Amino acid sequence: MTPNGPCPPSDRDPLLFTPGPLTTSRTVKAAMLRDVGSRDAAFIATVARIRERLLAMGGVSQAAGHEAVLMQGSGTFAIESVLTSALSRDGKLVVLANGAYGERIARIAEVAGIACTVIRSPEDAPVAPDEAEAALAADPAITHVAVVHCETTTGLLNPVDEIGAIVRSSGRAYIVDAMSSFGGVAIDVAGSGIDFLVSSANKCIEGVPGFSFVIAKRNALLGCEGNARSLSLDLHAQWRGLETDGQFRFTPPTHAILAFEQALSELDAEGGVPSRAARYAANHRALIDGMQAMGFRPYLAPEQQSCIITSFHYPTHPNFKFGEFYDRLSRFDFVIYPGKISRAQCFRIGTIGRIFEAAVRQLLSAIRAVLDEMGVPDGS
Amino acid sequence: MTPNGPCPPSDRDPLLFTPGPLTTSRTVKAAMLRDVGSRDAAFIATVARIRERLLAMGGVSQAAGHEAVLMQGSGTFAIESVLTSALSRDGKLVVLANGAYGERIARIAEVAGIACTVIRSPEDAPVAPDEAEAALAADPAITHVAVVHCETTTGLLNPVDEIGAIVRSSGRAYIVDAMSSFGGVAIDVAGSGIDFLVSSANKCIEGVPGFSFVIAKRNALLGCEGNARSLSLDLHAQWRGLETDGQFRFTPPTHAILAFEQALSELDAEGGVPSRAARYAANHRALIDGMQAMGFRPYLAPEQQSCIITSFHYPTHPNFKFGEFYDRLSRFDFVIYPGKISRAQCFRIGTIGRIFEAAVRQLLSAIRAVLDEMGVPDGS
Repeated sequence: MTPNGPCPPSDRDPLLFTPGPLTTSRTVKAAMLRDVGSRDAAFIATVARIRERLLAMGGVSQAAGHEAVLMQGSGTFAIESVLTSALSRDGKLVVLANGAYGERIARIAEVAGIACTVIRSPEDAPVAPDEAEAALAADPAITHVAVVHCETTTGLLNPVDEIGAIVRSSGRAYIVDAMSSFGGVAIDVAGSGIDFLVSSANKCIEGVPGFSFVIAKRNALLGCEGNARSLSLDLHAQWRGLETDGQFRFTPPTHAILAFEQALSELDAEGGVPSRAARYAANHRALIDGMQAMGFRPYLAPEQQSCIITSFHYPTHPNFKFGEFYDRLSRFDFVIYPGKISRAQCFRIGTIGRIFEAAVRQLLSAIRAVLDEMGVPDGS
Repeated sequence: MTPNGPCPPSDRDPLLFTPGPLTTSRTVKAAMLRDVGSRDAAFIATVARIRERLLAMGGVSQAAGHEAVLMQGSGTFAIESVLTSALSRDGKLVVLANGAYGERIARIAEVAGIACTVIRSPEDAPVAPDEAEAALAADPAITHVAVVHCETTTGLLNPVDEIGAIVRSSGRAYIVDAMSSFGGVAIDVAGSGIDFLVSSANKCIEGVPGFSFVIAKRNALLGCEGNARSLSLDLHAQWRGLETDGQFRFTPPTHAILAFEQALSELDAEGGVPSRAARYAANHRALIDGMQAMGFRPYLAPEQQSCIITSFHYPTHPNFKFGEFYDRLSRFDFVIYPGKISRAQCFRIGTIGRIFEAAVRQLLSAIRAVLDEMGVPDGS
């Protein structure tokens, strides 16, 4: 068994310290041990309950003018669905970007032929509301503003409420990529003036991957009609389908949806978003304390850092090779995540999913053991 | 319990006599009881094996110039991915259509702004190779021809090989929607000159829904570069991603993919496509014989009919109401499928998925009982 070879077979699944796919509960996975018809009454009722519960999580409701739409595919599919449905041919997007996921929004717009300006901030700083304000004042062609809430590139939390106030006062529409935050960080959808919030089944709600969802103001959704560049990713048509007969237009991932309803119930049982946020905060605190005790340096200042995922600089010791570090940790059945920061050598450790402090302590002791194996004295 | 109310709770899942989501084996579903990292070596190896096995099922190989690409979302997403990646801005599509899925291909092209002509045949007749030949000769602007193999609207099998010969001799590219046939009907991908074949995880391979796949000539895929109108649905970029590091560009449905590998193994264990086709044929034979014995009239002539799904005319007796028929069958834990034919009142019964002749016999006896309950003397 070489340390760089594949992980040897284990009876136990690895713990996934990643931004997803995540470790989920046994009961969430067990909810997939059923085959249900996608046009059958019981499944239609499941989809309706899920849509209602997502709105409630966001503190909004159909009665108060919001809608939840499920969309097949990863989170990127739902982001593209929103952009290509919300922006008309005359629309113009401004993206506030400080990482790879902000850049991805701009890239989606570019491929779709949507006029787009990017206001970039450094990866270790929040996006700048004042620059957004100036851009909106200077360019009346801008119709939509998009920002990533938790930039998974680094783990940084952007000020979606502050930006929301600016977007709203300027009369533009507001798109928030809350992929890795929704369900794990309290978000005031209505108070932040968010027109379209996008997240995925497989992040803080702790479902399995396979679909994503959009929480939108109904009026904003109505404004999407006829804009879509795609049949599959037409958000308005998807919503209309769900409203008309409760069904997806095209085959839904029924098993992932059954798992998601179970995941929503387990989120409730845990005490809702505040309790889950507290668990993630405890995981993150244990991680930061333990990593700093070993000399590892977090990439972000504490005031920018979310409890979702944390970037650490590579140790400077020449024996440290990330690939080897990763592989050796895999042999403890722990999966961490490579870095994605453009100007710093970092790796990432996620603290979301069905993971508790005990697992973080296990990971920390394994990291200590792996540094010893590699002859790396500490994380500095 | 009213007959039109929801199906009462049952310990057993319903049997799905539908075109999907289907009944799958316990072991296929049990393969989803794992959380694996999408960037981990073991999962990457799984994806590589799946791609290779899909090619082998189509009788082709990477060595001989073919590629398999997995795409998140339902089959429609993969169809759209092929159309919007294969056709350049100067491209023109001709669709040979005799049902709703052929029309959907045309609709995808329309929304995407792709020039498209539809050659329609009646829903109870195969598409017409001679009309295709004439259209290709008359319109040099046509670059691509698309057809549905098994038109799930009716259950009709179109002559993909005969059309393929015409498309090839005319020098056009050939797109085949083999959604509901691949794995259950032998298809000679190379011999039929197919450039892009599209199918889904949740049809005759008997996986769970959540992704779809494309088998393509490598040269055809290379020709897609730069054509895509979408980041998510860029077939060329998806293929490049899989080739570069073995990973999906965006979070894959890991659980559905684990289930799919198990489903491929169970297809092999059954004896491959010929044995599975034989099981479906036996299911279909039992269904047709039993339904005809009750007086039901199949919509299609036997020579057009696949063993995938069968359309039956509504009985003419005034007591027959499809909604009630469906609901009463649901109370036996049997799910059938509504019709989709534009000019005839039909319902559909699928005979694919983890379903054997005994289940078809159960369904037939339940249909007999339901007709009695409804006071409908027979199926005529």
